[in-house]
Parts: sequence; structure tokens; C-alpha cells
Amino acid sequence: MSAQQPLPIAISLGDPAGIGPELIAEAWVRRSEAGLAPFFVLGGAKVLAAASALRGLDCPVIAISHPAETHDAFARGVPVLGAADAGYTPGQPDDAGARLALASLTEATQLVRDGEAAALVTAPIAKAELAKVGFDFPGQTEFLANACGASTEDAVMMLAGPSLRTVPLTVHCALAEVPGQLSQELICNKARIVAAALTRDFGIDRPRLALTGLNPHAGEGGKFGDEEARIIAPAVAALRKEGIDASGPHSADALFTPRSRATFDAALCMYHDQALIPIKALDFDEGVNVTLGLPIIRTSPDHGTAFEIAGKGIADPGAMIAAIRMASATAARRAQNHVAHG
Amino acid sequence: MSAQQPLPIAISLGDPAGIGPELIAEAWVRRSEAGLAPFFVLGGAKVLAAASALRGLDCPVIAISHPAETHDAFARGVPVLGAADAGYTPGQPDDAGARLALASLTEATQLVRDGEAAALVTAPIAKAELAKVGFDFPGQTEFLANACGASTEDAVMMLAGPSLRTVPLTVHCALAEVPGQLSQELICNKARIVAAALTRDFGIDRPRLALTGLNPHAGEGGKFGDEEARIIAPAVAALRKEGIDASGPHSADALFTPRSRATFDAALCMYHDQALIPIKALDFDEGVNVTLGLPIIRTSPDHGTAFEIAGKGIADPGAMIAAIRMASATAARRAQNHVAHG
Repeated sequence: MSAQQPLPIAISLGDPAGIGPELIAEAWVRRSEAGLAPFFVLGGAKVLAAASALRGLDCPVIAISHPAETHDAFARGVPVLGAADAGYTPGQPDDAGARLALASLTEATQLVRDGEAAALVTAPIAKAELAKVGFDFPGQTEFLANACGASTEDAVMMLAGPSLRTVPLTVHCALAEVPGQLSQELICNKARIVAAALTRDFGIDRPRLALTGLNPHAGEGGKFGDEEARIIAPAVAALRKEGIDASGPHSADALFTPRSRATFDAALCMYHDQALIPIKALDFDEGVNVTLGLPIIRTSPDHGTAFEIAGKGIADPGAMIAAIRMASATAARRAQNHVAHG
Repeated sequence: MSAQQPLPIAISLGDPAGIGPELIAEAWVRRSEAGLAPFFVLGGAKVLAAASALRGLDCPVIAISHPAETHDAFARGVPVLGAADAGYTPGQPDDAGARLALASLTEATQLVRDGEAAALVTAPIAKAELAKVGFDFPGQTEFLANACGASTEDAVMMLAGPSLRTVPLTVHCALAEVPGQLSQELICNKARIVAAALTRDFGIDRPRLALTGLNPHAGEGGKFGDEEARIIAPAVAALRKEGIDASGPHSADALFTPRSRATFDAALCMYHDQALIPIKALDFDEGVNVTLGLPIIRTSPDHGTAFEIAGKGIADPGAMIAAIRMASATAARRAQNHVAHG
């Protein structure tokens, strides 16, 4: 490998009983038409071979002993690093599969942190299965923050598709707890991370952030709730004072119409469903979950393990392909900035 | 007019400074290609003529003295009943316009209640403007419930577009109040109204109702909130016991993907934005707001007055045309049922 070759992308296998392995194989098959840069997978050689065969794909699995071998191997098949493996039982998760998923995620993260791979793409895991084998995080995002020595608050989840980008400012808590969790500080911290990442990783010079209201019609002038006046509007004002192009609070239902979507680069939403409903309704088969605010680059297809359709040959590879493509593009942009500024 | 001719559709003008008048004129111009049955407007002859002229439409305004004259007049222009009128000041609402909007809505409702028109289509009003001239309701839906002698709880708002139908079970209240407003009784009452209306007015024999969860991932087995186990799941069970094909609680973010949308006839959502975000994201230019549970048929384009673009010739008539078409189709279905059972 010449020194000029860019670092490869590391992919964690995800739960081997889910749709992750077959989508990785499908992405490799479509690598040319999709314009995918070389990637390798951590472990699961037998799983990948079986998933590929069941889907009817011609996808050889090539064992490699170092990420630097990815480039050459990638022309012939999907490169796999490491001996961790399990049986392929699509739709039927078990502890052996969960242990493989966790080992794959752990090693892939470490290689990216060590600078052996340019970015991390994570295939979907099943949190309940991983919890059985000792995984003690609400999700992969929190695991990664911890692995990078960052606080959970600094790892910001953004959903990105062809139609729009959304960021949930609160995530996995009861809806009743959302009003109490919102604060000007929380909103401003996350907005700063999003603005910086849209510039650094997405090449948007002056990102336009649209903040939703919490209440219907953004409270309609205080008639339905006061969080807009008390928390969100002051946050928008503070961000603007810092030079961040923030707007809002906007009526959330009106913010995702086609005309409105053209007016912002990312919508910052007050809670989980406000952010995830529009992206999944509009961009489900191409939605990417990207983690902002970490030292490493990490993307993921915005879908779960889909155990009910695993191994049936019908899972759509669009989001996996989009996640790999976004990881490469981000890595290339960071490398270029590094050269430009370095 | 022969006795066999179906009754015309009555349209209320909406705020004359909004986009309603120009969209009514545009709908008349497109009546043939859109397959619209004859309609008439209550008042606003001067407003309609001016809005039509500014939009560059060839849409004569024909004064009629009784709804029964609609059929003949409709071939030559947009029929207008009544002398109430105002100046046309697009984008600049005033009290005279608000009074005209209220008079138009009041008279149109009365004619439909009296059986002189088959259905009511309401063009958008500005609640804040109408409040200044004595309108004491949160919106047109509540006004209509009152005018029909029904309780507000029995008038159920459904949003319908080519991609899906959604019903918000709570509407104009702060998000913090939603958990406290939900009850098994409220959910079951509204679900019964929706199921009956989908059969009577939309011709769906056994409507499939999908209920969302309140919390992210429908609470993920009680991890984020207990409303699913305490309120929503028991409501689904009770509805199923009555023979209504209800399902859920479903994760709201997963319910509006293309594959999931094919599995239900209407999504019953726990709060305003959960219902309105997906329909406006997917079907904004063809979204219809239809009121279920009232003795009269009422539809409305699912957009507001849009003062900022009124008179500029760019407002999309899709939702107005869809609202008129849905009103006619519903009226025809009710008339047919009446003949079949009468």
C-alpha cells in the first residue's frame, strides 16, 4: 500500500442474526455503482459468507491480517479482520451472536481511535441482546462516547437523509420528562456541536440551524406552554449572538414541508419523535445516523436489526450504502482540512 | 334543476386577505381536469374577482340567489351566494375581512345543516383575526361542533393525504399536559368515531386503526414511561373486544415508513405534532383536514391563510382541490348509502 492511499473504513458487524451482515455483503457487491471507498469488517467471516450465500450474492470473504491490506483485498471480496465468529442464525439472536457483535464493535472502535481506519460504520445491534452479555449503555452512541473518553452529552445524534437532517436534543426518556430536561444550556451546547460538525464534516460554511418549538404551533404565542418563551427563544438569541445562524422556535409540523426544508441545514428538535418521525417518513431507506462531537467519525444506517426479515433477501441496502458513503466523504473532508491547515 | 341533480358543495371564503379566495378561483378554473362537482361560495364576490384577476385567471364570478342555481352557473363561473363582501387586501388582514370570513362560515354551515348543500369546505381563517370580531372558538372545528349541537369531544380532526391518514387524539394543549389528558375513555371514544367514519364516509369495511405510543419506541417495554401499559394498550384491547381492528401501541417514528404505512387505514396519534408532522412532511400540497363525528360533512385544505404569499400567484391549489373532491366523494357515498338503506 502506498502512503497516499486513504485509510479504509472499519465496519462493525452488528448482531449477526440481524440484517447487518447481508447488507454489508450487498454493499460490497454494489461498491462500484455506489462509489464506495474500501472498507473492512471486524470479525464474522463465516457469518458474512453464509448471509451472502443465502441472499444469492457473489461476495467472497477475504481474511486480512491488518487494515492496510484492505485496499488490495477489497477488489476481490469483502475483507475481514480478526477470527471472532459465530454461526449464522438469521432472525434468531443468541448470546454467542451478541458476544460477536460486541467484540466487533469494540475492536472497530479501537482501530479507528488508533488511526488504523478512517471512520467507523456500525451495523445495527440489538440492545436487549447485548445487555445480556454485559453491554451497559443505552446504545452504541453512548458506548462510543465512553470509548473516546468523551461525555455522553457531547455525543450528538444526527439523522441525515437526502431530504433533511434532524437532531433530537433529548432522546431516550419519557415524553413527560422532556419539558424538565430542556434548558438553554443543553440546547446551546448541542447546537454548537452541530454547527461545528456541519462545517468541519459536511463542508457547510455557515450552517443554518432551525429549532423547533416544544408545543403545538410553537406554543402559539404562549397559549399552549411557555417553554418557547422561557427556554428556546433565549437559546436562539444566545446562539445568534455567538454568530451561529439559528432560527426559531418554529412550529414543528410546518417545518418539514418541502418548501420549509429548503430553508435550513439541520432541524434541532426538542424530543425523539419530533426528529425521527420526519426523517423516517421521508428518507427511511437512505437515512443515516451520524454521531457528531466525537474525535472519531461514526455513521450507521438508521434502521435496526430487523430480525423479522433477516435472511429473507428483502432488506434494503440503501441506508447501509449511504452510511458508508457519508463516512468516506467525512473522512476525506477531514483529511483535506488537515492538509490545508497542517 | 332536476330532482336527480346532487346537491352542490358550499365553500366558505376564509380570510379574504389569505390564499383562500385565489385557490377557490384556481379550483374552479381546474374543475374539469380535477373532476370537481359543482360548488358555490358564500359571499366575497368582489374579493374573488380581484383575487382571480391578480392571479391572472379567467374566472367569472356569477351571483346566484339560491344554492339550487349552482349547477347552471358553475359552467360559466364561480357561483357566489349572498352580498357580504369586503375589499381585497392580500397579506393585510383587517376587521372587515374577518367579519366577512365569519359571516361566510356561519352561512355556509347553516345551508349545509338545512340540507341546501351536500357538504362544507372551509377555506383557511386566521384565528387571531376572527377573535377580534367576536369568534370565541379555538378553531373552525370547534365552531362547527357547536353549530351542529355536538360536543367538542365528538368532532374529531383527521388529516388525510395520498400517503396516509392521521388523527391527533389531543390537539391544542401544551406538550406537558398531554400525558395527563390521555385516558382509555378518550382514546376509545375517538377511535370509535374514526372507525365509524372510515366505514360510512370512506367506504372502508373494516378499518385498521394503528395507535402510536406516547413515548419514544412506545416506551421500550416500560423503560421510558408507563402510559403505553397503563392507558394505550388497555384501550387497544378494549377496542378489539368491540370488534374494531385496532393495533399498537406502535413506535411512532417507525409507523410512518413506507412499508408500515401500508398496514393501516388511519394512525391515531397521542398529540398534535405526532399526527401533523408526518402528513405535512409527506402530503403537504394535498393534505385535507376532515372533521369526523358531525352530522354534516366538512373538509378543509390542511394549510393556513399563508398571508405572506397571498396574492403572489404561487400558492398551490392541490389541497383545496383535494378538499373539494373529498367533500363530494363523501357526500356521494352518504347519498348512496341513504338510497341503499332507505
